[in-house]
Amino acid sequence: MTATSVTATDTKTTRGPAAGAGPAARADLLRRHRPTLERALEVISTRESWSPFPEGEEGYPPGAAADGEAAFRALLDRPFDLDQPGGDGAVGPAPEQGGEISPYGFPLGVSYPHADADRLLPALRDAREGWAAAGPWERAAVCAEILFRLNSRAHELAHAAVHTSGHNFLMAFHAGAVHAQDRGLEAVAYALREQTRIPYEAVWSKPMPGGRPFVLDKTFTAVPRGVALVVGNRVFPAWNGYPGLFASLATGNSVLVKPHPRAVLPLALTVRTAREVLREAGFSPDLVCLAAERPGEELAASLAVRPEVRLIDYSGTTAFGCRLVREAGQARVRTATSAVNALLIHSTAHYRDMLDNLAFSLALYSGQLCTSPQNLLIPRTGIATDEGHKSFAQVVSDLGDALSTLLADDGTACAVLGALVGPDVAARVEHAATGAVGPVAVPSRTVAHPDFPGATVRTPLVVRLDADDPADLATLKTEWLGPVFFAVAVDSAAAGTALLRETAQECGALSAGVHTTSPEVEEELERACAAAGVLLSVNLRGDWYITQSAVYSDLHSTGLNPSGDAPYCDGAFVADRFRTVEVRRFREPS
Amino acid sequence: MTATSVTATDTKTTRGPAAGAGPAARADLLRRHRPTLERALEVISTRESWSPFPEGEEGYPPGAAADGEAAFRALLDRPFDLDQPGGDGAVGPAPEQGGEISPYGFPLGVSYPHADADRLLPALRDAREGWAAAGPWERAAVCAEILFRLNSRAHELAHAAVHTSGHNFLMAFHAGAVHAQDRGLEAVAYALREQTRIPYEAVWSKPMPGGRPFVLDKTFTAVPRGVALVVGNRVFPAWNGYPGLFASLATGNSVLVKPHPRAVLPLALTVRTAREVLREAGFSPDLVCLAAERPGEELAASLAVRPEVRLIDYSGTTAFGCRLVREAGQARVRTATSAVNALLIHSTAHYRDMLDNLAFSLALYSGQLCTSPQNLLIPRTGIATDEGHKSFAQVVSDLGDALSTLLADDGTACAVLGALVGPDVAARVEHAATGAVGPVAVPSRTVAHPDFPGATVRTPLVVRLDADDPADLATLKTEWLGPVFFAVAVDSAAAGTALLRETAQECGALSAGVHTTSPEVEEELERACAAAGVLLSVNLRGDWYITQSAVYSDLHSTGLNPSGDAPYCDGAFVADRFRTVEVRRFREPS
Repeated sequence: MTATSVTATDTKTTRGPAAGAGPAARADLLRRHRPTLERALEVISTRESWSPFPEGEEGYPPGAAADGEAAFRALLDRPFDLDQPGGDGAVGPAPEQGGEISPYGFPLGVSYPHADADRLLPALRDAREGWAAAGPWERAAVCAEILFRLNSRAHELAHAAVHTSGHNFLMAFHAGAVHAQDRGLEAVAYALREQTRIPYEAVWSKPMPGGRPFVLDKTFTAVPRGVALVVGNRVFPAWNGYPGLFASLATGNSVLVKPHPRAVLPLALTVRTAREVLREAGFSPDLVCLAAERPGEELAASLAVRPEVRLIDYSGTTAFGCRLVREAGQARVRTATSAVNALLIHSTAHYRDMLDNLAFSLALYSGQLCTSPQNLLIPRTGIATDEGHKSFAQVVSDLGDALSTLLADDGTACAVLGALVGPDVAARVEHAATGAVGPVAVPSRTVAHPDFPGATVRTPLVVRLDADDPADLATLKTEWLGPVFFAVAVDSAAAGTALLRETAQECGALSAGVHTTSPEVEEELERACAAAGVLLSVNLRGDWYITQSAVYSDLHSTGLNPSGDAPYCDGAFVADRFRTVEVRRFREPS
Repeated sequence: MTATSVTATDTKTTRGPAAGAGPAARADLLRRHRPTLERALEVISTRESWSPFPEGEEGYPPGAAADGEAAFRALLDRPFDLDQPGGDGAVGPAPEQGGEISPYGFPLGVSYPHADADRLLPALRDAREGWAAAGPWERAAVCAEILFRLNSRAHELAHAAVHTSGHNFLMAFHAGAVHAQDRGLEAVAYALREQTRIPYEAVWSKPMPGGRPFVLDKTFTAVPRGVALVVGNRVFPAWNGYPGLFASLATGNSVLVKPHPRAVLPLALTVRTAREVLREAGFSPDLVCLAAERPGEELAASLAVRPEVRLIDYSGTTAFGCRLVREAGQARVRTATSAVNALLIHSTAHYRDMLDNLAFSLALYSGQLCTSPQNLLIPRTGIATDEGHKSFAQVVSDLGDALSTLLADDGTACAVLGALVGPDVAARVEHAATGAVGPVAVPSRTVAHPDFPGATVRTPLVVRLDADDPADLATLKTEWLGPVFFAVAVDSAAAGTALLRETAQECGALSAGVHTTSPEVEEELERACAAAGVLLSVNLRGDWYITQSAVYSDLHSTGLNPSGDAPYCDGAFVADRFRTVEVRRFREPS
């Protein structure tokens, strides 16, 4: 299958910016990135496995790891260099001035320029003219260049993610760098496809009585909405932030990036790289700016209601997401908020493999992913397995053993788990560990990190709950971000399916899972997940986990339940970031 | 170019409804309408001229006109037969009970079933299951059948449009029937394209270290949002209502149609036809229901905030549109509201043709189209033409002569003009005719209609205004729906362009026009219209008018200015009427 709607006409960029240093650079970018963009257009239609960015160390030049770490270290304990308009002071470096502290236990010592919104927003607005006129393919090529340049700094970005979001290094290298870059490129591909569905030029020839047709020459131009605001979260600022950033930028908007005050560095590096590429290509670097936040400033709330801001991509708490939707009536707001994910353990023909897969899913980043399966729904009468019937208690105990085995070695544990991102997460673990929430079935262990003196990570804590108990039900319907999981006794597969659906519809969910050998149970789950709008993973084993989302293939978030309104990534995610304006001209009869 | 993203996989309908009378009928519909749908998919990409529905009488069987008129007459003075759930009385037939009165002067005498929303909405919700499961192609085929069946009743629908919206017959035959059907089919094509961008099934195979790939089987299912509410207007209930109705229906939603209380009949016929086709195809007819309104009931406002309602398409006043956006937070609201359109007359090489084209554009349906050019911006120093320089006064006077010539004959006048839709429109004409708004440059004539005793239509009234006068500026920035037009003196082409842009951005606009021989003026206008999000028509002459919008080709409304948020018709118009939910299944390594 060929790429969608891509014809020679679509690549026309007749309305590019005025000549200058940029045209040759832009032509070069288009030549270099065109094959990648065409392949990305193909893949978002076929949903096959693909990425232009290597996932493994072997894909990068020798020395890249050491260079990246050195580059990260060189960022510490100094002002972050970002030449953007409207500066009126600094944020940080001291924690009480808004400076970041690594979840692994030390202050980063970085200060960022703070900007006056009254000067920054006009700069973002004025930057747009040449960019809007450049056309979809040129914009896509510039965006691809930004992403490839970010990829060349994958190790540096990974270290930045480790010391802002508390990832282990591998997760940081993936979610904080490579996969985030993939998500950016995926959004660029969608933006390109949406903007080229309609040709730039068309001849409209209407047969008329008498034989001579009536002819109009038409042009169709993609017009951006305005300034886009991206509000980052702490746990995955790049992975959650790039889709909105690149979807808005690729459709001709300018983008203001407001990072979480504790996870500025990854997005500051992103903004700086974007500005560098834009400048080289002859566009205004002010198309992408950073809005670092002073303590107590509530910057997202005040920026969100500015009339210049027409698009908002927010990831964070449900309460603040709802506030943005309510208050920012001038903008189209997309939210990614909280999720209460569930997984039904009904039956399996691969008991040990299932336990290993589950253990890893729970342990990864100490349960701080938005796709971590919080509620494990298990029939109270137990489950059928290839090792015979297993009681509810046995399944939970075996899961505890699988966790112990996986995390026995401190080094391995630290490579799978993650530092807790905040005192609220730690407090939830401590509270649950007392048994106050429910009987502790699998205790959490504190592991000292070998690389960072004084830093610790936590293994998963599993608490037993009963779906028939109203207090337990309230507990499991609350989001417990972090390494607290619930083994929930349910009456039957049907009851578990109903509970999964109800939880997703009431509380939001981004992932659902099932282990079953029954086609009927699987079909019921599938029906429930369609109704609740949740991606369902069936009988996962081996090296793929419910927590993972394959860029260009999986659809993360549907917008059908309260976990948010941002369908990553599909046509609807980009379609209304621009509009198409037509001109029709009378053609003299020939 | 082949149709977008359409592959064999896309047509898979594995999840169709349970067997019954329908499967054979559905297979037949798909077979019959597939070529039309494929052609429509092609045309929305090429934007060429096309329609499956004949525009001229010669495209219909002999006798269709007489049969259609007889069918319309048979509807009068009796209850409208509509077998739908939740009935709790009637609306009409007497005007004080909500019965319709023809703008040509007689009561229709039709009564409609009124429904209890508490019973109707659950029926709409429950109707959806089989429809949602049917798959995009089956739904599209059923929608196409509804539209073809409506087309076979084009004459009957045209008479219904004449006697609810006050159209002349030709306009009613086009905007009230054929072109509305085209717009419905255009929306179906967009819905089909959006839903088939992603394959129903995909195999995801990820290369793994060691050589054996990790494989997941994936399915992607389009899931509708819920109940869609369509709120119709009086002037073009079908033309404005069909895109939302068919976009929502084709994406799997059920649709509740709430017509304007004075223009129920066209949408009641539409709903009845849709129910008939759905039933025959084995689906629940309750997928499409009518909500007729009792006097004073404010039904749109109460239905809009029902939790079941997730999509709203509204056309009508700006005030009520804003209220819906504010109050119906549970739904995605699309509005089509008021417009203040302008046309710059700068220079021309075809003076007489230009005047004739303008005269027709002003006269058509007595200026009650949402695309009628209300403000004619003319440099106060006059314009250059192929007949030499023409002063401002001369241009206006010559336009008056062109109008007089066009509308000299009462029969011809009645075939071009239309009955005024309400006393508010008539009052505006009377007020402007007194000279209170500005000097009358071209008076309006009252024409007695030859076919309807006592009925009259009005010719355009042109009032002279000056853009430099603040009071005149306020006048021209107000929507004057109906046959009141302003000849506005502006300082220059640049001043006219700025005023056109300003008016569009402040008041909303759906059409803009220019007559100029200057490439610079044209380019400036194009830039202004891109910024303001208005379709620009350049130097139209002959048989195409600024008021017209070619279905499948022109983009009517962009959502970039206050005239509304409904971009008819493009991907963004349909993209978030459904979401796609994925299931991924572990595949046993082979």
